Amino acid sequence: MSSQNIVVIGGSAAGPKAAARSKRLDADANVTLLQKAPELSMASCGYPYYIGGNFDERNQLLSTPTGVVRDESFFAAAKGVDARVNTEVTAIDRSRKTVACINVLTGEKATVPYDKLVLCTGAVPRRPPIPGVDLDGVQSLSEMRDADKLRELRDSGKVKDVVIVGGGLIGIEVCEALVESGMNVNVVEMLSQLLLFLDWEIAKLVEKHVVSKGVTVHTENGVAEFLGENGRLTGVKLNDGSVVPCDLAVVSIGVVPNADLAKKVGLEIGGFGGIVVDEHMRTSDPDIYAAGDCVEISNRITGKKTYAPYGDLANLEARVAADNIVLGDEVVFPGTVNSGICKVFDLSAGSTGLSESRARQEGYEVVTATNASPDKPGFMGAKPLISKMVAEAKTGRILGFQCVGPGEVNRQVAEAAMAVMNGNTVHDIGVADLPYAPPFSLAIDHFIATAHVLQNKMAGRMTGISNAEVKERIDAGSAPFILDVRAPGEFKEMRLDVGETLIPLGTLRNSLDKLPQDKSAEVVTFCKISMRGYEAQRVLEAHGWNNVKVMEGGIMAWPFAVEQGC
Amino acid sequence: MSSQNIVVIGGSAAGPKAAARSKRLDADANVTLLQKAPELSMASCGYPYYIGGNFDERNQLLSTPTGVVRDESFFAAAKGVDARVNTEVTAIDRSRKTVACINVLTGEKATVPYDKLVLCTGAVPRRPPIPGVDLDGVQSLSEMRDADKLRELRDSGKVKDVVIVGGGLIGIEVCEALVESGMNVNVVEMLSQLLLFLDWEIAKLVEKHVVSKGVTVHTENGVAEFLGENGRLTGVKLNDGSVVPCDLAVVSIGVVPNADLAKKVGLEIGGFGGIVVDEHMRTSDPDIYAAGDCVEISNRITGKKTYAPYGDLANLEARVAADNIVLGDEVVFPGTVNSGICKVFDLSAGSTGLSESRARQEGYEVVTATNASPDKPGFMGAKPLISKMVAEAKTGRILGFQCVGPGEVNRQVAEAAMAVMNGNTVHDIGVADLPYAPPFSLAIDHFIATAHVLQNKMAGRMTGISNAEVKERIDAGSAPFILDVRAPGEFKEMRLDVGETLIPLGTLRNSLDKLPQDKSAEVVTFCKISMRGYEAQRVLEAHGWNNVKVMEGGIMAWPFAVEQGC
Repeated sequence: MSSQNIVVIGGSAAGPKAAARSKRLDADANVTLLQKAPELSMASCGYPYYIGGNFDERNQLLSTPTGVVRDESFFAAAKGVDARVNTEVTAIDRSRKTVACINVLTGEKATVPYDKLVLCTGAVPRRPPIPGVDLDGVQSLSEMRDADKLRELRDSGKVKDVVIVGGGLIGIEVCEALVESGMNVNVVEMLSQLLLFLDWEIAKLVEKHVVSKGVTVHTENGVAEFLGENGRLTGVKLNDGSVVPCDLAVVSIGVVPNADLAKKVGLEIGGFGGIVVDEHMRTSDPDIYAAGDCVEISNRITGKKTYAPYGDLANLEARVAADNIVLGDEVVFPGTVNSGICKVFDLSAGSTGLSESRARQEGYEVVTATNASPDKPGFMGAKPLISKMVAEAKTGRILGFQCVGPGEVNRQVAEAAMAVMNGNTVHDIGVADLPYAPPFSLAIDHFIATAHVLQNKMAGRMTGISNAEVKERIDAGSAPFILDVRAPGEFKEMRLDVGETLIPLGTLRNSLDKLPQDKSAEVVTFCKISMRGYEAQRVLEAHGWNNVKVMEGGIMAWPFAVEQGC
Repeated sequence: MSSQNIVVIGGSAAGPKAAARSKRLDADANVTLLQKAPELSMASCGYPYYIGGNFDERNQLLSTPTGVVRDESFFAAAKGVDARVNTEVTAIDRSRKTVACINVLTGEKATVPYDKLVLCTGAVPRRPPIPGVDLDGVQSLSEMRDADKLRELRDSGKVKDVVIVGGGLIGIEVCEALVESGMNVNVVEMLSQLLLFLDWEIAKLVEKHVVSKGVTVHTENGVAEFLGENGRLTGVKLNDGSVVPCDLAVVSIGVVPNADLAKKVGLEIGGFGGIVVDEHMRTSDPDIYAAGDCVEISNRITGKKTYAPYGDLANLEARVAADNIVLGDEVVFPGTVNSGICKVFDLSAGSTGLSESRARQEGYEVVTATNASPDKPGFMGAKPLISKMVAEAKTGRILGFQCVGPGEVNRQVAEAAMAVMNGNTVHDIGVADLPYAPPFSLAIDHFIATAHVLQNKMAGRMTGISNAEVKERIDAGSAPFILDVRAPGEFKEMRLDVGETLIPLGTLRNSLDKLPQDKSAEVVTFCKISMRGYEAQRVLEAHGWNNVKVMEGGIMAWPFAVEQGC
């Protein structure tokens, strides 16, 4: 048997993984990696941290953990892979099984034969069809050269005012990078919230934090026009007519699959514009596989196709593709649960599975719980976490989990991702055995505690009300009786100031005369995190009140303004 | 229906949870909590951090997150629970369903009737039957007053030399606390390693770190005698005859269930000396439940009974007991997978499930993989993690996972605990969708990467050899050909110095003449973490060598001495 030719198109994340893994599995194979950009195997998720000056050595984005740059000679020597940079693929001939390419620097053309082909052509940033989008100063962040450009602008010290168009993950990471670089930043977002993987009231907590860093956030607003003089950006005109002067606009309104080559040769394309692959990462052509940001994959919860352009999935998909090419379609890639996390200044924000709004869109009947509690005991320097758990009402199966805060979000979301992938219920998590020691977690881990809250709600022991609903009712002039059961000192320090009544939990049993004496009057209880709020509900119900609700997450999760000091 | 009487004996961890939860579930119940000690609801896992001076306010161990001390009046006012401290239970009358108790300060006696009783009597520290154990200066760490005593000794500045007897979790935490307090510390351990939940070679990495902090560790050695003068400890005589002078000895050789009361009234006691409970946390008396360190529970992997005295489990067990008392045995406590974690100076060490040695003792045929790799990308300030995964050979089911290092152990062990509880295989984890962003993890999370290594081993693509076996072979004079494939710079900085040959991976394909030309000669490859070691194995096998092994975890996981500098 002669050795097989494996050709991989694309050299960012999925491509290098597919190439290197193929060669390790089949040492006899001729593996060729064709990359249009001058760099290989870029840590593109690291661009915001390079731009923001977390580190200065550009090569760190391109190096192995021991500091070797992953260039053509590295791939040849260490991986046995024939990697060619600056090499654009111009055509695929499926019947002859060849790939035509051109060196974009020298103009040299070549034809590479393949037995198996892997498409890892990635994604391209969405460009809004807005006047002025081609002005100098309107920038996206997709390729290494975009990162170089933004870093250069930062180092020049000449950029003072920035508008970031799009309040998603990349937008927020770039926002932080540029604020840390001393720039004055505006974020413009079409929708009513940042970070769409979070539910509105959780996203508002992130927004509050971003605003506290001096950023101006314009939600429910879009860019009508990029304004310029002599071809240079001078400002941005928003949909509401206002003008924000700026020297730089970073457009980060998402990416779309780069499936041009696949389309051209008639491979099946899906509803999101991505290459359709089966569970083996094989396209509609049995000799062509695809992986990374150019494909559509399955959502493991809904079973539907989705588009999930994440660097970690690209690597896993590519590994599965290589396995199946060499071993014969024996490995299955099950899809995504949309796990993600990002740093937002002093907060982390993470999510896995479906948000409440997304789950409802998908037709699930859901129950949710919000839990605000510390990540560790107070004596170990606890920091708050605010989480929301979404479960299927019928079964208690956890569909999603979101967590934000200055505390240890990382472990929480990782645990939740495992739970969602495994189809665990709130009852499974309520008795989970997770590692505990004071430097690392609470005796009842925050994730478990959140499941406990949801169990209590599902059993009808706790009736919750969201802070958004409470706020709406207050604004509409139909506020319920709002009962703050914290201590006087806590009240002095910070309070809602919406007409609430303070009765500390410890005195509640002796202060029942201060409550509405109509036992069917609606009472909303809360405390710092609403654990005491829940105790108060139990006390009031034991004394006959029958319309008591706990405002979930307490004052910690309150995304609106609060009064501070006395 | 008259309101039921629920009596809980024990007020540390499980007791307060059982009492408060019962009252929340049944507002009409009379809930009484009887506690022998003067304190309630102590965060006993925090004692080492109090002793070590991480914080100075003793009340932080006894307070709610908002700083309210959980004393009798707190339990009365906030929880509706009649908590009585300094109250020792002297007898239980099962036929009359009463509990007799005495106030240990006033001598006042009382009889409390119960409909349901919950035993949360905790554990007592093992005391070695060694001459001199009663000397002043021989101390255990179990109760609040022990913590007070050790903190007082620390603050006095009078203790210079300490011997810690027992190198388990508490022993190591106290070791750190006392070293940080400026004391000279010896740790004496009967077995050949510290932290028995880790396999030997992983525990040795911890030991190496502890020793680097100036601690003297005596393994395979025990205390023959506590030496004293005028009733005061002056030193410790070890089993090997040596004498270690000291002012303080902390005995931490584990705990045994405090099941005296249960025994006295004829409840069923198990093989570990703990109270036998069913999956509802009910004892052999249907009106008596038990939870916390006094009970035996199931190991969720083996299905066998085990003793797992952990604070987090105590809380969960107590919650289940309360649920079943009030709601009628509807909630099941499934047991433990022995998840645990601890801080050891600049390292964290965690584990879940079975270690390799434990799994083999239990009769499992296992495969294992060791993985040393960073927790994050280098440009985000990566720190190393060294992990070992243990799986069932037949099925690939993950039986256990251990992780140590200065890196982010917490998330890794939590993920693994979820995997073990769910019966996930290495193949499930190989395609897991976990949250990724550079500040939090690698694109291929360390836990997933460890599963990948084990997949490669199970598929026969990678043949591993443990560093312990390599060392043994070297010491026995039958060393294989040892091939270091790192870069010359890395070699200069640190090397095994056991007669290895350096051929950087990038030059290996052109340096095959430097290998033993007998293709069946045993070759052991390694690098920093053994990813390149694995690549080297693949290269050599492609060129005909048929007895190549990768030393797992590379030089990062090497627990023995290394040569440093040139």
